[in-house]
Amino acid sequence: MKSDIDRLMRERELDALIVTGGEEFNTARYYLSNGARITHGSIFKSLGKPALLVCNRMELEEAAKSGLDVLTDVELGYYDRYKEAEGDSIRATVLHWSDVLLRLGLSAGRIGLYGAWQVNKTIALYEALKAGLAQYEFVVEAENTLIEEAMLTKDAEEIVRLKSVARRANAVMQIAWDFIAGLRRAGDYLVDDDGGRITIGDIKDLVRTELMARGLEDTDMIFAQGRDAGFPHSRGEADMPLQVGQAIVFDLFPRELGGGYHHDMTRTWCIGYAPSEIRETYDTVMQAFDISVEAFGLNKPTHLMQEAVLDYFEKAGHPTTRSHPSTMAGYVHSLGHGVGIDIHERPSISHLRRDDICQIGNILTIEPGLYYPERGFGLRIEDLFVVDEKGELVSLTPFRKDLVIPLKDDGGAAQ
Amino acid sequence: MKSDIDRLMRERELDALIVTGGEEFNTARYYLSNGARITHGSIFKSLGKPALLVCNRMELEEAAKSGLDVLTDVELGYYDRYKEAEGDSIRATVLHWSDVLLRLGLSAGRIGLYGAWQVNKTIALYEALKAGLAQYEFVVEAENTLIEEAMLTKDAEEIVRLKSVARRANAVMQIAWDFIAGLRRAGDYLVDDDGGRITIGDIKDLVRTELMARGLEDTDMIFAQGRDAGFPHSRGEADMPLQVGQAIVFDLFPRELGGGYHHDMTRTWCIGYAPSEIRETYDTVMQAFDISVEAFGLNKPTHLMQEAVLDYFEKAGHPTTRSHPSTMAGYVHSLGHGVGIDIHERPSISHLRRDDICQIGNILTIEPGLYYPERGFGLRIEDLFVVDEKGELVSLTPFRKDLVIPLKDDGGAAQ
Repeated sequence: MKSDIDRLMRERELDALIVTGGEEFNTARYYLSNGARITHGSIFKSLGKPALLVCNRMELEEAAKSGLDVLTDVELGYYDRYKEAEGDSIRATVLHWSDVLLRLGLSAGRIGLYGAWQVNKTIALYEALKAGLAQYEFVVEAENTLIEEAMLTKDAEEIVRLKSVARRANAVMQIAWDFIAGLRRAGDYLVDDDGGRITIGDIKDLVRTELMARGLEDTDMIFAQGRDAGFPHSRGEADMPLQVGQAIVFDLFPRELGGGYHHDMTRTWCIGYAPSEIRETYDTVMQAFDISVEAFGLNKPTHLMQEAVLDYFEKAGHPTTRSHPSTMAGYVHSLGHGVGIDIHERPSISHLRRDDICQIGNILTIEPGLYYPERGFGLRIEDLFVVDEKGELVSLTPFRKDLVIPLKDDGGAAQ
Repeated sequence: MKSDIDRLMRERELDALIVTGGEEFNTARYYLSNGARITHGSIFKSLGKPALLVCNRMELEEAAKSGLDVLTDVELGYYDRYKEAEGDSIRATVLHWSDVLLRLGLSAGRIGLYGAWQVNKTIALYEALKAGLAQYEFVVEAENTLIEEAMLTKDAEEIVRLKSVARRANAVMQIAWDFIAGLRRAGDYLVDDDGGRITIGDIKDLVRTELMARGLEDTDMIFAQGRDAGFPHSRGEADMPLQVGQAIVFDLFPRELGGGYHHDMTRTWCIGYAPSEIRETYDTVMQAFDISVEAFGLNKPTHLMQEAVLDYFEKAGHPTTRSHPSTMAGYVHSLGHGVGIDIHERPSISHLRRDDICQIGNILTIEPGLYYPERGFGLRIEDLFVVDEKGELVSLTPFRKDLVIPLKDDGGAAQ
């Protein structure tokens, strides 16, 4: 969590860190600036000292909400440096950062670079920093980064926000369920009171509107039916009409409006009835879900959970990415991941990643699934969990896990 | 535009380009993949040949919508390389990219790197590419990049989308105007039928909902009143009640739902009446707006427009960033910018940027403003323009530029 940052800097022998970037949504900047709505600006932090947020003059008022020390680029003489650099913004940034670092009392040392930016600009700046500021050593981490490690565990304030997002996401899933349950069956399709066929786009519109009414925003939900559900990341076609007896994977992962903490949950639904093949496969996925939760152990490696599921699925005759690394059918992804400001954070729950440990303060998904696009279906179940203060795994996704949404009015039709 | 890319590659003597990145919204990837909804994946393009999109197996179906050639990381043997690299994902990527480049017939050459990703991961990958694939020269551009230059002008299909977003954004601004005009005055505040004070948050909720109903999403609009409006990027406080006679800067810059093309427009409103100081300053801003449009010239430098406005404001006694580089009052920003998939694209209209030229196919804002936070107001007017096929500057923002929203029911109160 955030209070670990000085410790994480010491472990890496960093004298300072800089978080930079352009207008892209910048997870590290959001995290360290406590969600300030700035589109430009960099954060400078020396070991053991409070962070300084350097912003454009136009964003001063928003930057001040970060609670960090704030200075504008004007106050720091950026535009003089820009002139000195004859309008070369990379060169100007090198001179400007040198000014800021000296102001923080750093004339040499190891400096970690973080943030998100255009690939080309990032590398150009890095080359210019190495050439222009040889008194500093710029440190870049590819894996197990300081920011990732800090975000591995959430503090009390973050958990309050995550629980609030969870409650709202669960409520919206209930609204979608209730809406579908209230539809009328007409042959294989579902229709509204006027007899119009309801499409996936209609459901997504409803969900987006209900999320927004609760201060959340959709980040491209999956509502995929039939064969589409057999590809884990297919979003679902807006113009496809809902049908009875098809597997629908509904993966909802909204976040706080304008960027912020996420929830992540998946349910698989069959409207009206479930064919026996889908029902039986669903039981297997549910069994895998329970096995994953059982395999959780505080301070134990996360990969044990994935391996328990791999063992189970393989024994039941399903191909997996362990038994058949290039498979497009069966169990084709990892079991779960951390969730926070990013939808995919650490810890990972994968057999390919062996160094992640279950810790108090983790927020993580468990989401086994089976995918058979050639047989016209895919199934996944996902809850988001917190590892609470007692070290117990507690679901933030209490929403029911029934496969079938019974129709109040089934049109008198048999299966 | 996109059809310029091979020419832009030739000008840069690039044999290939690679667009890469993580899950961040990635403008270059969105652009070159025609908006495919993929969260992982890189694009490889050799000079004169179609682009190849390499995606995760889970995203195959979405990737196929790009219209590009698509191969999955499984098909390309990524996971064998991952194993060979002993789980070092940077090292695995270097080996994997080498495989892809050889498959494209490139055993040497100059390769431009583009995209958006974490700063630290980008640099780590770059260092590994230089060390591991010395047969290639990796080229990074900091300014006037190939992607920026391609996006400088929009093709017919992009302009159709931008015009559609424009129509919808203008319609939503009309809804906000009508809603406010229909409120009842109670003292200095505005109330609904039940007598509750209407806040900035209420207006933003209405606007977000109406945008969404039209397939658009808000990207953190500005609706800032009084002193807040005096800081160009203050978002406005949700819990602040609307008041009569205050300057409100409403800067609306939504985009297509889930990421896509933007509109960008600003109006300044006073509800009920405008104090004379605000009215007079508004006339000055409107005059500056007209002067900017007059100063437009096809194939002429954009900075001439900014300079015309600087001359006018300075003559009228307002400080500017040219006359007073560190000023926080007066005219404190540049005149405009290109708009597309990013809200801030080229061309820039700034006196600090002298190499941008007005061209057919530009989509750009003109947005003069004056800011006096200590006097409790700021004012800005912004239209989005297209430079059409005849080389004429045509506004996509026909919405009225009246300063005062007259109240249908002014509560019988005088100013």
